[in-house]
Amino acid sequence: MGMGMTAFDYYRANQEKFLEGLKALLRIPSVSALPEHKADVRRAAQFLADELRGMGLRGVELIEGQEGQNPLVYGEWAEAAGRPTLLLYGHYDVQPPDPLEEWVSPPFEPTVRDGNIYARGAVDDKGQTYLLVKAVEGFLQAEGKLPINVKFLIEGEEEVGGEHIEQYVGRRPERLRCDAALICDTEMFAPELPTLTTGLRGLVYTEVEVRGAAHDLHSGVYGGVAPNPLQGLAHIISGLKGSDHKVRIPGFYRRVRRPSRKEIEAWKRLPFNEKRYLRTEVGSKELVGERGYSVLERTWARPTLEVHGIRGGFTGEGAKTVIPAVATAKISMRLVPEMDPKEVARQFAARVRKLTPRGLTSKVRVLSSAPASVVSTENRYLEAAAKALEEVFKRKTVYTRSGGSIPVAGLLHEKLKIPVVLIGFGLPDDHLHAPNEKFHLPNFYRGIEAVGRYWQRLGE
Amino acid sequence: MGMGMTAFDYYRANQEKFLEGLKALLRIPSVSALPEHKADVRRAAQFLADELRGMGLRGVELIEGQEGQNPLVYGEWAEAAGRPTLLLYGHYDVQPPDPLEEWVSPPFEPTVRDGNIYARGAVDDKGQTYLLVKAVEGFLQAEGKLPINVKFLIEGEEEVGGEHIEQYVGRRPERLRCDAALICDTEMFAPELPTLTTGLRGLVYTEVEVRGAAHDLHSGVYGGVAPNPLQGLAHIISGLKGSDHKVRIPGFYRRVRRPSRKEIEAWKRLPFNEKRYLRTEVGSKELVGERGYSVLERTWARPTLEVHGIRGGFTGEGAKTVIPAVATAKISMRLVPEMDPKEVARQFAARVRKLTPRGLTSKVRVLSSAPASVVSTENRYLEAAAKALEEVFKRKTVYTRSGGSIPVAGLLHEKLKIPVVLIGFGLPDDHLHAPNEKFHLPNFYRGIEAVGRYWQRLGE
Repeated sequence: MGMGMTAFDYYRANQEKFLEGLKALLRIPSVSALPEHKADVRRAAQFLADELRGMGLRGVELIEGQEGQNPLVYGEWAEAAGRPTLLLYGHYDVQPPDPLEEWVSPPFEPTVRDGNIYARGAVDDKGQTYLLVKAVEGFLQAEGKLPINVKFLIEGEEEVGGEHIEQYVGRRPERLRCDAALICDTEMFAPELPTLTTGLRGLVYTEVEVRGAAHDLHSGVYGGVAPNPLQGLAHIISGLKGSDHKVRIPGFYRRVRRPSRKEIEAWKRLPFNEKRYLRTEVGSKELVGERGYSVLERTWARPTLEVHGIRGGFTGEGAKTVIPAVATAKISMRLVPEMDPKEVARQFAARVRKLTPRGLTSKVRVLSSAPASVVSTENRYLEAAAKALEEVFKRKTVYTRSGGSIPVAGLLHEKLKIPVVLIGFGLPDDHLHAPNEKFHLPNFYRGIEAVGRYWQRLGE
Repeated sequence: MGMGMTAFDYYRANQEKFLEGLKALLRIPSVSALPEHKADVRRAAQFLADELRGMGLRGVELIEGQEGQNPLVYGEWAEAAGRPTLLLYGHYDVQPPDPLEEWVSPPFEPTVRDGNIYARGAVDDKGQTYLLVKAVEGFLQAEGKLPINVKFLIEGEEEVGGEHIEQYVGRRPERLRCDAALICDTEMFAPELPTLTTGLRGLVYTEVEVRGAAHDLHSGVYGGVAPNPLQGLAHIISGLKGSDHKVRIPGFYRRVRRPSRKEIEAWKRLPFNEKRYLRTEVGSKELVGERGYSVLERTWARPTLEVHGIRGGFTGEGAKTVIPAVATAKISMRLVPEMDPKEVARQFAARVRKLTPRGLTSKVRVLSSAPASVVSTENRYLEAAAKALEEVFKRKTVYTRSGGSIPVAGLLHEKLKIPVVLIGFGLPDDHLHAPNEKFHLPNFYRGIEAVGRYWQRLGE
């Protein structure tokens, strides 16, 4: 504890140490989607719990769920009597790293290049979770106290839509009682532009299995009479979305409303260059999607349907002439406010059934689902966050939505009856869920400072 | 060499030894489609060459092709002056064994159960190649001579449509000069029913690659504007065939003619039970295909299009929300007589281009192709074969076609100007190209005897 040292002095003096800590966390391949990484997932939870305990938080523990669920990391500091209590959320699990061959440096060997740290989970969400931890550490180490009370709740099933956190929040709302939640798992609209996210899309993620013959068949001998599950799957997928990019599921758009004129006008003022976005972020020949909606509206406020993978048959090198017995596809839908995940899942299943060609049988399994959420921009927790960001980034904070889904945002808002603040320090080209995921290191450090300033404001 | 012993005595006395030899050949995982089995492929060729040399054939060698091509196994016996010369064809490469988990016993650990030998390649085509070898061995060991002259030409690229044999036959027709070719790579129409195959479908096997964004994208953040290659592929595939099972490629059916009324009438007399075929061979809810054509006509005399595999995106356990940058599909067409593989490949590529949705680019690569072939039933080589089969199986030989493709049949016929005889001892439920491939052992032994009788007839 330094003499008269502030948390902010501490942040500046310890950047190198923070980076080493982040690297250690990133080295743990805590891929929640892959059963073979079960032990690594737990190791990442333990790593965070050790850090929380080491810097003086109380009640630090791994909260265990049902058989097979990943632990929640909990820790609190509650000595700022009369000051607000903030629930701090992040997640320590990461997406699978494949395709491995496209990574410039291996996904679990964090490497700094050009001011960025490259690794799976660098920004989503280990880097952004860790910056909350370091922001707390700065206050406790330099000043011996925090300006507000905090409760960490860090989960390990975000990337697989696991139910542990939902069950726990439902079961123990009194332990998690707080005045607002701070979620650090989003991105800035543009480099240097401080951003608060006020809306997220929901998600219904499914697996569709199509079966034909009892076993794989030779396509020469049986081609012409045997039903082909891959062909059937292609027919189903093709029938789920028109060439106008409208989702062709009866009832799908019934509850969809356009955002307010005010919100859409504000989006138009954002520094968005469609050509640059196409070139630097997407990199396809052109952008696609529904006519009559801007890019931002299409990705933030319109529901979509995407195919993530198709399995079945032979995909190795060369030519194998097989009609597979079974084929599966992973298909998800993003939802906007008012859409009901359960209703959408039912509509989807009915449509798949209807599209399944004769001779084949299909089965739909819902792997995860969450409603969309929209946050009001008018409360002190959001306003203080906006000011703190402006203080650090020296620019006016913008309010955006995100096309992604953070189910916990809706969950905390609904179950704990609190405002939810989504601050993010990722950049649009950080390659989330893709090879060469990165975190811009200056944003890591500014993120720590901005969060510290935010808490200071809340504690005033 | 036994005193007064005949080849047929030798066959009967050596069944156990023949089975051990076959097992040794089946243990070599000579999967030509998988580069990691390159050495195994060569080992299988060497195994056969050693056998041919050991039993007294002349000019035995591994004929090498271009870099990367698998060797042809050659060996001859030319001492039956004035008697016909038969080219004996088989292939020593096999299909990939996946999906491995569906095999009751491992694909490269040949196992006898209920009178069948189970292994990848058991019937296609190691077992049927090896019975030609053993038939020759019987004559040479027991009688010191063959009733006719033979030239073995055994290839190792049949399952991948490799070009080595085509190049070699084109380059060295004089070395392969013969009066007829015997191909042992087909099946019997029904158990106990001796069968000669008089027609094969052709093949155009392609790989279609579809590209969208420059790298994998998060489907939450970019869903709604990024083109999805899997979706595009589904659209393309769905557009290639109608729900009436007609291939929807302009010009595709232009050259297709129905078989003669006489041939179709003969097919109607074959012992074929559609219900039983559905139940025991296909095992789907129902058979599909073009209306107005029987099952035999649909599989033997109608062109088809099938998808064999789709690769791209995430197909592991759980939920990964990715829009892949690239997706590929393996798609093949079976051709009937008069259809030109080059023309079909062009028509296909044009149709794929046309079906490719905006924002995506597609590329078609032809991996292999061969025309269909039809053999006349009126020549002494076919007639002698029919009689020899009747002698062994005690039933009248039937003439059928096959839906599969054996490009070498057309090749030998065209380049060497000879009749091609297709004898096969496989059974309809032998699971070619699928898990649990088998060869009915009584057919292995009767195959050896039938081929021996055939040569004896030709030598009379």
